Amino acid sequence: MKILVIGAKGTLGSAVVEELKDIGEIIQASRTHADIKVDITSPESIQQMFEEVGEIDAIVCTAGAAHFGPVEKMTPELNRIAVESKLLGQINLVLLGLPYIRDNGSITLITGILMDDPIVNGASSAMANGGVRAFVSSAAIELPRGIRINSVSPNVLEESLEKYGPSFEGFKAVPAKDAALAFRKSVLGAQTGQSYTVY
Amino acid sequence: MKILVIGAKGTLGSAVVEELKDIGEIIQASRTHADIKVDITSPESIQQMFEEVGEIDAIVCTAGAAHFGPVEKMTPELNRIAVESKLLGQINLVLLGLPYIRDNGSITLITGILMDDPIVNGASSAMANGGVRAFVSSAAIELPRGIRINSVSPNVLEESLEKYGPSFEGFKAVPAKDAALAFRKSVLGAQTGQSYTVY
Repeated sequence: MKILVIGAKGTLGSAVVEELKDIGEIIQASRTHADIKVDITSPESIQQMFEEVGEIDAIVCTAGAAHFGPVEKMTPELNRIAVESKLLGQINLVLLGLPYIRDNGSITLITGILMDDPIVNGASSAMANGGVRAFVSSAAIELPRGIRINSVSPNVLEESLEKYGPSFEGFKAVPAKDAALAFRKSVLGAQTGQSYTVY
Repeated sequence: MKILVIGAKGTLGSAVVEELKDIGEIIQASRTHADIKVDITSPESIQQMFEEVGEIDAIVCTAGAAHFGPVEKMTPELNRIAVESKLLGQINLVLLGLPYIRDNGSITLITGILMDDPIVNGASSAMANGGVRAFVSSAAIELPRGIRINSVSPNVLEESLEKYGPSFEGFKAVPAKDAALAFRKSVLGAQTGQSYTVY
């Protein structure tokens, strides 16, 4: 099995690569320092990545940026960061990646707990998460050739607490390896259209 | 009470205007043929609308376009129709409209059943709906000056069955006036961060 992991060098991405490495060949993509460089905010960059990688069995994405800040001070431009990256960046992986996925392959995208359990300054990220989850549940009923699609929604990661902890007071952080397990379930399981919560 | 209804000339918008007309002054906005013309895909047009309308007590939106078509044939450009209109068009009403909303005012946006109960060809619309719902639930916990925000998610409308019926086989259509009631609940109630389903 050939698995393309986008965001492979991040905290979660590294854990996912570790979790999936016994399954088959992992191709690591990220903005920098990986087998393949990709900027998911650019459809051209995504297209180029797929042409370089060729046929695959699974697309796994743990990448996606968003602006964190108060709604009252958010401009349409700041909100667009999440739109172009975490929302459309991921959805364009689906739209442009489909022809490269083998029969009965899978796609697994990343969302996050903020869509279900909001924090102050998290509205833009929540928006992207909710959009991805709804797209996944809808796309699942019509993907061709037995291709499945799921998303994973983790709580704040233990590994990220030092950086983000003050925004997540009272949240029960999860280790990145637990979130990575949900990606394994998506890639090797048979379900489709699911949002796997790791809360 | 001064209420700005965007999308006032549509099937649902007309029902909402009818439902809210006893509450106070309704200002009708739409792409064409209304008190005020607005193109919600343009932040400049939204800004101009608010400058023209001035202070208001409630923003109500029943507008938002999306491309309907198979995921397999959807391009990033076609998916962007829903992003710029139903998703960002509505969220920009919030971001740009906040300074014009009086203390304890409200915002009510529109989503739709496809995020919960998908149909073939509906993934782009589902994405926009899910994004708006998540943004609303998150923005609600931090809006200033007692301003509330909710969204309404209707089933397919009875009035739209002739046009959209074949895509919604087995769905229990609801009259536009029932969906309009949920907007009344949002404007005159005290809840915030809710997604009112009219299924």
